[in-house]
Amino acid sequence: MNKSYEQSDCGVARTLDLVGERWTILLIRDMLLHGARKFQDFQASLPGLAPNTLSARLKTLEANGLVKRQLYSEYPPRVEYALTDKGKTLGPVLRALREWGTKHA
Amino acid sequence: MNKSYEQSDCGVARTLDLVGERWTILLIRDMLLHGARKFQDFQASLPGLAPNTLSARLKTLEANGLVKRQLYSEYPPRVEYALTDKGKTLGPVLRALREWGTKHA
Repeated sequence: MNKSYEQSDCGVARTLDLVGERWTILLIRDMLLHGARKFQDFQASLPGLAPNTLSARLKTLEANGLVKRQLYSEYPPRVEYALTDKGKTLGPVLRALREWGTKHA
Repeated sequence: MNKSYEQSDCGVARTLDLVGERWTILLIRDMLLHGARKFQDFQASLPGLAPNTLSARLKTLEANGLVKRQLYSEYPPRVEYALTDKGKTLGPVLRALREWGTKHA
């Protein structure tokens, strides 16, 4: 889990405590754009992201109620990660980040 | 400088390349809320932020054209940091982060 900014009176800091770690926002972006994703989908989309980091980020997102892990008992079993309803409410945050980057970065 | 996500086709990643490092958004928040700030003002507002990290973040923001450093040749000389016009365009990003944190975090 990310080290907290310990500024619980500030909405900005509280958001960053949940999604401010490196890579986390890009995982959320992928799930907003494409829906449920497999571990390998994230790896294909984000070549610079190490598997252990990806695993840690997904665990944190799940612990914070933003992502749900779905196990399909096929053969071979399939695991997918998708945003919860709470996770989907991050849409406007992603939109603001995208708009700024498109115009100014 | 933050390690780039190397996803220059994605506005979200381009924004994070400029403001995605730990603490950076909270420095921008302080300058949006209070205008020009001294080094000690940031330290007072963010007790968990080490001075060398603060210094590095301000240098990166200045190098990216988001912050300007102003030297006032008084005695003792005074240095202040303020957002450039480009830096101020981050207002909507901060607003989205704040609104989400207030509602959901």
